[in-house]
Amino acid sequence: MDEVIADPLQSMLTWYKQNFSEPVQFDKMRGSWLPGFIPEHQPLIKARLNEPGFFRHLPVMKDAVDVLKEMNKRYEIFIVSAALEFPNSLKDKYEWLQDHFPFFSWKQIVFSGEKRMVYGDFMIDDHERHLQHFKGKPYLFTSVHNIEVTGYDRINNWLEAADIFLK
Amino acid sequence: MDEVIADPLQSMLTWYKQNFSEPVQFDKMRGSWLPGFIPEHQPLIKARLNEPGFFRHLPVMKDAVDVLKEMNKRYEIFIVSAALEFPNSLKDKYEWLQDHFPFFSWKQIVFSGEKRMVYGDFMIDDHERHLQHFKGKPYLFTSVHNIEVTGYDRINNWLEAADIFLK
Repeated sequence: MDEVIADPLQSMLTWYKQNFSEPVQFDKMRGSWLPGFIPEHQPLIKARLNEPGFFRHLPVMKDAVDVLKEMNKRYEIFIVSAALEFPNSLKDKYEWLQDHFPFFSWKQIVFSGEKRMVYGDFMIDDHERHLQHFKGKPYLFTSVHNIEVTGYDRINNWLEAADIFLK
Repeated sequence: MDEVIADPLQSMLTWYKQNFSEPVQFDKMRGSWLPGFIPEHQPLIKARLNEPGFFRHLPVMKDAVDVLKEMNKRYEIFIVSAALEFPNSLKDKYEWLQDHFPFFSWKQIVFSGEKRMVYGDFMIDDHERHLQHFKGKPYLFTSVHNIEVTGYDRINNWLEAADIFLK
């Protein structure tokens, strides 16, 4: 979900700029976007991530709805989110999916801690740690925190996903 | 979780006997325990299942804690619960696990709708529908609703699981 169909970074940046004046260091967001914020603000940022409601109101990634709606007609799709790190996000994420992706039933949703136990033909994810154990074909969805990762075919946006999966 | 490490049926029976006088028909609980209750009460029973708190206070299956604590030292274990049918149960189930199985980290928890996407060496489940697509070795955990199911090796209780996995 996050950084693939939902955009928590954009939401965090909006909130951050309303509350703090220090610049965000995008070049430090390697592996995670947290180091892009100065250390003094990180406890508040982590608290914000754990706040009920944060994941309820995230922007949707461009073209994700249209492309996934079509893909859902041709593939058996599961939305797998490593959401258990933030238990308060579970209900929020479920309701967010119902709002923006009503064509996915509850049977297609998976909230996990890790993704090592996931089986399938394709996985689209922004984290190498979720893709590296996958038995099918992995695709790295480009995000600010993974631009230096190599060794994976990339999907940079949902129109590219349409090119791969809907041709 | 349900009918394997947690006991929602026992919890439901206690509540049912406090509220209704009609007998429960255990011989009708084939595939699901819902048909064991008379049709007139089923809307209230379904509402009870969806009530926040129901899954928070379930009894633990006998010996599940001791056996899984040992198994957790020798195996990579994931607790996979088809919990998305009852979205209000997500937080409850997470907190229940923290209470009774504190040795499982959030990284070992999976809340799903189906279990078709689960990969592993062994699966212990009370429903044939979750076991039938599994690529590893399936074990049917005996429950009142599955006693007529054939074609699977069974685990009748957690001491039997210890015999299989901890010898």
